[in-house]
Amino acid sequence: MNKKVAVIMGSDSDLPVMQEAVDKLRFFDIPVEVRVISAHRTPRAAEEFASHAAENGFGVIIAGAGKAAHLGGVLAAYTTLPVIGVPIKTSMMGGLDSLLSMVQMPSGIPVATVGVNAGANAGILAAQLLAVGDEALTAKLTAFKEEMAASVAAKDEKVRAQFQD
Amino acid sequence: MNKKVAVIMGSDSDLPVMQEAVDKLRFFDIPVEVRVISAHRTPRAAEEFASHAAENGFGVIIAGAGKAAHLGGVLAAYTTLPVIGVPIKTSMMGGLDSLLSMVQMPSGIPVATVGVNAGANAGILAAQLLAVGDEALTAKLTAFKEEMAASVAAKDEKVRAQFQD
Amino acid sequence: MNKKVAVIMGSDSDLPVMQEAVDKLRFFDIPVEVRVISAHRTPRAAEEFASHAAENGFGVIIAGAGKAAHLGGVLAAYTTLPVIGVPIKTSMMGGLDSLLSMVQMPSGIPVATVGVNAGANAGILAAQLLAVGDEALTAKLTAFKEEMAASVAAKDEKVRAQFQD
Amino acid sequence: MNKKVAVIMGSDSDLPVMQEAVDKLRFFDIPVEVRVISAHRTPRAAEEFASHAAENGFGVIIAGAGKAAHLGGVLAAYTTLPVIGVPIKTSMMGGLDSLLSMVQMPSGIPVATVGVNAGANAGILAAQLLAVGDEALTAKLTAFKEEMAASVAAKDEKVRAQFQD
Amino acid sequence: MNKKVAVIMGSDSDLPVMQEAVDKLRFFDIPVEVRVISAHRTPRAAEEFASHAAENGFGVIIAGAGKAAHLGGVLAAYTTLPVIGVPIKTSMMGGLDSLLSMVQMPSGIPVATVGVNAGANAGILAAQLLAVGDEALTAKLTAFKEEMAASVAAKDEKVRAQFQD
Amino acid sequence: MNKKVAVIMGSDSDLPVMQEAVDKLRFFDIPVEVRVISAHRTPRAAEEFASHAAENGFGVIIAGAGKAAHLGGVLAAYTTLPVIGVPIKTSMMGGLDSLLSMVQMPSGIPVATVGVNAGANAGILAAQLLAVGDEALTAKLTAFKEEMAASVAAKDEKVRAQFQD
Amino acid sequence: MNKKVAVIMGSDSDLPVMQEAVDKLRFFDIPVEVRVISAHRTPRAAEEFASHAAENGFGVIIAGAGKAAHLGGVLAAYTTLPVIGVPIKTSMMGGLDSLLSMVQMPSGIPVATVGVNAGANAGILAAQLLAVGDEALTAKLTAFKEEMAASVAAKDEKVRAQFQD
Amino acid sequence: MNKKVAVIMGSDSDLPVMQEAVDKLRFFDIPVEVRVISAHRTPRAAEEFASHAAENGFGVIIAGAGKAAHLGGVLAAYTTLPVIGVPIKTSMMGGLDSLLSMVQMPSGIPVATVGVNAGANAGILAAQLLAVGDEALTAKLTAFKEEMAASVAAKDEKVRAQFQD
Repeated sequence: MNKKVAVIMGSDSDLPVMQEAVDKLRFFDIPVEVRVISAHRTPRAAEEFASHAAENGFGVIIAGAGKAAHLGGVLAAYTTLPVIGVPIKTSMMGGLDSLLSMVQMPSGIPVATVGVNAGANAGILAAQLLAVGDEALTAKLTAFKEEMAASVAAKDEKVRAQFQD
Repeated sequence: MNKKVAVIMGSDSDLPVMQEAVDKLRFFDIPVEVRVISAHRTPRAAEEFASHAAENGFGVIIAGAGKAAHLGGVLAAYTTLPVIGVPIKTSMMGGLDSLLSMVQMPSGIPVATVGVNAGANAGILAAQLLAVGDEALTAKLTAFKEEMAASVAAKDEKVRAQFQD
Repeated sequence: MNKKVAVIMGSDSDLPVMQEAVDKLRFFDIPVEVRVISAHRTPRAAEEFASHAAENGFGVIIAGAGKAAHLGGVLAAYTTLPVIGVPIKTSMMGGLDSLLSMVQMPSGIPVATVGVNAGANAGILAAQLLAVGDEALTAKLTAFKEEMAASVAAKDEKVRAQFQD
Repeated sequence: MNKKVAVIMGSDSDLPVMQEAVDKLRFFDIPVEVRVISAHRTPRAAEEFASHAAENGFGVIIAGAGKAAHLGGVLAAYTTLPVIGVPIKTSMMGGLDSLLSMVQMPSGIPVATVGVNAGANAGILAAQLLAVGDEALTAKLTAFKEEMAASVAAKDEKVRAQFQD
Repeated sequence: MNKKVAVIMGSDSDLPVMQEAVDKLRFFDIPVEVRVISAHRTPRAAEEFASHAAENGFGVIIAGAGKAAHLGGVLAAYTTLPVIGVPIKTSMMGGLDSLLSMVQMPSGIPVATVGVNAGANAGILAAQLLAVGDEALTAKLTAFKEEMAASVAAKDEKVRAQFQD
Repeated sequence: MNKKVAVIMGSDSDLPVMQEAVDKLRFFDIPVEVRVISAHRTPRAAEEFASHAAENGFGVIIAGAGKAAHLGGVLAAYTTLPVIGVPIKTSMMGGLDSLLSMVQMPSGIPVATVGVNAGANAGILAAQLLAVGDEALTAKLTAFKEEMAASVAAKDEKVRAQFQD
Repeated sequence: MNKKVAVIMGSDSDLPVMQEAVDKLRFFDIPVEVRVISAHRTPRAAEEFASHAAENGFGVIIAGAGKAAHLGGVLAAYTTLPVIGVPIKTSMMGGLDSLLSMVQMPSGIPVATVGVNAGANAGILAAQLLAVGDEALTAKLTAFKEEMAASVAAKDEKVRAQFQD
Repeated sequence: MNKKVAVIMGSDSDLPVMQEAVDKLRFFDIPVEVRVISAHRTPRAAEEFASHAAENGFGVIIAGAGKAAHLGGVLAAYTTLPVIGVPIKTSMMGGLDSLLSMVQMPSGIPVATVGVNAGANAGILAAQLLAVGDEALTAKLTAFKEEMAASVAAKDEKVRAQFQD
């Protein structure tokens, strides 16, 4: 009954970044399926997956890809589910190619893009989307946010003390 | 009962771009509220709005801003609702400053960024988020997608004929 | 019997640039078909076209698109015909987004990219591809090259004279 | 009675760069307080700190942050004290994201930005601000400048001799 | 007795941008002197001005220049007064050349850089520097900040009403 | 009788990248000749080679070069054969200098540019050009494409299983 | 007996920029010859010109070109005369393509590059080269420099007066 | 009697790059003097050096500097001798900051810029400038060029043989 999240990467070399998305989703107890689908090498798998994603119980698709990072756009072309794009870092200006290839989508087919290599943020964003109208998940996100704040506050205390004259 | 979408801009000069988001949301019969809130000039209004957005019936926040475009991040800091960022075009490399200021968020606080000046895509993305698990809205999005395809197909026919030898 | 060239654009707003490709192809008496196919709005038309392009008598595909310019890559995913990409100028750094989205293709699926808005060069390149082993077309290309040289030489004469002390 | 300088970083990973600011301030005998405050993870701490910084005896705030580096702007929104921004180096074009996110502030809320990773320069700039009308501190700055010149002159002598034919 | 601010531009073509700095300074009743001094065409005037600026009653120097914008750095080399740099917009990526030439100063000689063409922010920043320890000027800055907030709030009201369903 | 492909590099330091082009060409049983020719250090060799390439049995020229990468353009100036350019990665923004120097050719003289360091794609593209109208080579390219797809599908299976809950 | 300067442009559309080089050279009474030679369309004219430039009485070559601006490098390949490059402004990031194509020459074959569209500076630089050991020309350059300084000083006076309180 | 070349660096950390300039100058038997002079830390040494460089027997000045690389411009402001600029590589986009800070000089004061870290080319360019009208030095440059060509030709032979089928 709970919507699943698909974490799709264009190449298994993107796994270290996309693992962070999976980790965050599991942290929020969101069912996840992980796939390697290439927009260019297995385009029919991309079409097949995206066309049936909604009926197969997915609520959000996360797509990670690098360089001419078409994966997010290609999936978005075949579904009305929200697609979150993770531009993978490259040697071309630190991933600017991946970022622009993902975010600059034509009118009508958005891809919700997060920062370069921001796998964790993609997972959190997917959780935020699914939490709209879901009080239990919202509570988990609120708790997560408070823990982050507490962690920063603890570091603040430590650094403050360290520099106390 | 239906979640509202907030369309917030950092300056009223961003209105032409953000109007496109409003238009798309109204096209999908989604209630919308439009605000001018500056992350830097009215930071307390930003905090106030974002802190209470969920309880005030909002499901998604769209934030448009240019240059050091902090608005999306500042709102996201105070809510677990998904925040969609619209980087406004500037003279600095065509809005690269706005784009990087929005998309490169630190781990934990994502902003779902769309293309430069992509107000329409922000509206569509917000509709997609709200459509997760909402069959009626999904049907509208599907119909919209089909109309887009039909419109491109019509142009295809016209151009094809025009160049027929 | 002669291979045709397909000139495909993602949007009819790209027509002025792509017209230059058509003009060059017609100059070389190469049969051409012009289409509007969007990688994202009419993805099945893209798949349909590219999958059958070879059997339908095409020898080369020229694809023009802007921003997250996926069209070339999406077509190349479905055919072994050479695909020439024309990045369309945008306001994002003068088309750098289109260029990087086209040229930075993953290993295995190249797109032969020409300069930003270089519709004419795409047409000439297509002619060069078809001229491999075709003496008549090679002769036309050689003549074209000589005319270009003559035209520059004429301008040289004129400017030289103009600045003669 | 002497104004203090606050050195604030968005993450404790920025400490090596910000340590250089602290070192320079201590070199000039300026009291300093060091904090970890995140514009996005602990936004209320940022508001709290900046709102009361002047009454708490601070004269200048130095803020170091990377990527979508909002910290300087968020602090500047809540105070009229001068805020110096230190963009932290990232893999995105060497910190261009941090730089643009800091320096391109909207009219009305400036952030005095120094170079990427230029923690030392932030400390020196803070000293310069506090030295306006303070002869003792001005004398220290003048002496510092003369020592720098002497150090360069010594290297000049050494290199000159090394290459003497 | 009150410190003056120098507004220096590398070329009189920079005057429209630098006028905004002057306007803001006059708004805060800060005495201002306006100069055209070129780091490269009148380098001795730059040296002369900066070397004696402190003793001539200046508290802050604002320097505006474009392209290889050395003016701020050249002035900073000859004084310990804070130097605020205004990168002037150019056709090279919207002023990225001016920005990098100003902000990326070597360790020891900072230039407090504001955004491209941000003359107004340079004036406000200068006022903020002079307000450190000056209650009357601080009060003016606080009032200015409140007026900005009120102006944004008024636009917010107007836009909100305009979009009321 | 079969057309040969020339793989030319501006410096033997480019060999690791260009080796990938050679490997792909040999994989497709295409005869290849490998050369080191510098557009600037041995310009007459470049002219000599390109002027006679067609009559010497070449069908395609692949040119790899870095920084001010003129090699592709200089060869293209002397032949009507298609020239494929491989921009070699540099430290200047990850090879943006090489890319722009290759792809932004003037009207009349195209260079078919592939991605930065994309030697393999250059080899595949050359095979695609020669396969126009050659059924045996087309069959090899089709088989290669199917093997790529199978390889991605195998990785997909593996990753999917690895993340099965 | 006096060395001539060649002003060569890749296209007559570059004339307005290169005219400024001619004007400066004539101002210094340096004989000049103006040519349109394309590195790609008339490569043999480029070779011919550069190979014989020294024996034909030229002392310096100025080359202006845009986009993949190979002209300077191609000329430098055939001569040991100093070659000054003028990158012409384009829509690709304001001429960054032209600049990088000119300045990033491989070791052994330098091109002395001036700023984007800096035709006047190319003329002045050529004069400076020819003035090495030529007292009369050095005196003209010194006078020119003094006039520039006087012109800036006059503008300084005017602006100073205009803003006198 | 022979003109000397000054090789000046802004910091002794630039020595490895500038050593290459020295090596090339010594290879051509040109007398050289090496200095560490900082435009910002020892501005008076810069002025002193440049103002008297001509009368002290220098014919050309080579200046290497990184980041906000003002050194070339500052020296050029005080002399009519040709100044060659070497932008030193930085982490900001591979030295784009240094390059733009050097090459984008205002009209009237050119700096002859070579590529990033191109110390060797700066030395060769200086030799080319001094060779104008000097037959012996021209002969050395011609011989150097022929050796380079021979070296490339030798590598060509080796690579060709290595790939002979």
